[in-house]
Amino acid sequence: MARWELNARGRLEAAALELFVERGFDQIIVAEIAQRAGLTERTFFRYFTDKREVLFGGTGALHDLLVLAVAGAPSTLPPLDAVAAGFRPAIAVYFENRPREQARQRNTVIAAHAGLTERELIKLSSLSSGLADALRGRGVAEPAASLAADIGVTVFKLANDRWIESADDRSLSDHFDAVFGELKPLIAHS
Amino acid sequence: MARWELNARGRLEAAALELFVERGFDQIIVAEIAQRAGLTERTFFRYFTDKREVLFGGTGALHDLLVLAVAGAPSTLPPLDAVAAGFRPAIAVYFENRPREQARQRNTVIAAHAGLTERELIKLSSLSSGLADALRGRGVAEPAASLAADIGVTVFKLANDRWIESADDRSLSDHFDAVFGELKPLIAHS
Repeated sequence: MARWELNARGRLEAAALELFVERGFDQIIVAEIAQRAGLTERTFFRYFTDKREVLFGGTGALHDLLVLAVAGAPSTLPPLDAVAAGFRPAIAVYFENRPREQARQRNTVIAAHAGLTERELIKLSSLSSGLADALRGRGVAEPAASLAADIGVTVFKLANDRWIESADDRSLSDHFDAVFGELKPLIAHS
Repeated sequence: MARWELNARGRLEAAALELFVERGFDQIIVAEIAQRAGLTERTFFRYFTDKREVLFGGTGALHDLLVLAVAGAPSTLPPLDAVAAGFRPAIAVYFENRPREQARQRNTVIAAHAGLTERELIKLSSLSSGLADALRGRGVAEPAASLAADIGVTVFKLANDRWIESADDRSLSDHFDAVFGELKPLIAHS
């Protein structure tokens, strides 16, 4: 790999997010992203099929990681703990090296665009289906499996929002644990 | 109102759902819906702005009912119990007179069409935001308010799926209570 293509993916992501925030997702063409990153369009298409994949390309890997981790969690764990036990390593692998500013830019771009917002909801819904499958594979019956999967995704989504909004140095993992800890007092335990 | 327009809305809904299932949402024009219902296009547009509103028109009323009922639930209830106390009357008012076969047709049509699926997810997400607002109005802090609202919508969605799929005569309310009953053990052991 030529020296000027070092970390090409990361440079393309950073350039694309900056441009999307500055001028709006629909206004940006791939040539501008490549130019801002100091790379060619051809290099862009080696990493992404289109500009939308800059926003959603990594979510497939997160999905696979999560489902594997839930399937492999200790068999004695109750459903929601198995989901949390899946999210923790997936978050550690997938998010701990991502700059929070980029996560913030990604959220801003998606929230400002109806089509991208819909896409994000579809992705989260498919993540929840994947987790429910993994739980059923652990012997969890319905509707408990779907319920635990959906609650896990909700906790993750809220933790992500709080991580993005906060200014202190708590990690996404810290926020995940904090939101997960809020579940018990939500319901009367008669 | 002329005699042949009695229950025009219900007849138009039934005709539209039948046609959407038979030939697909995109293939159907309003003139066919009106014809199948034995009514005019003009009558159709007195009740709906377009054919998509046949599927989503009532969800605004459900949303308003729910938010009011959560806001008015006894102030001593923990957040999730307040959400459930909101869903119960809203379901009773909004669903108890709806034929299950129509709910089933509606689900089939939406599941077969990416644009409608996205629309449904957006509606559920906005319902969750409305419920979280109502909970914050009751003094519930974040992230507990958003968490309880999202979990409530999940319980409703799963109960609706089970109601539609089941052949016995349990009502949507019965299914809601059954799915809600599965939450306690999930959360208690988390």
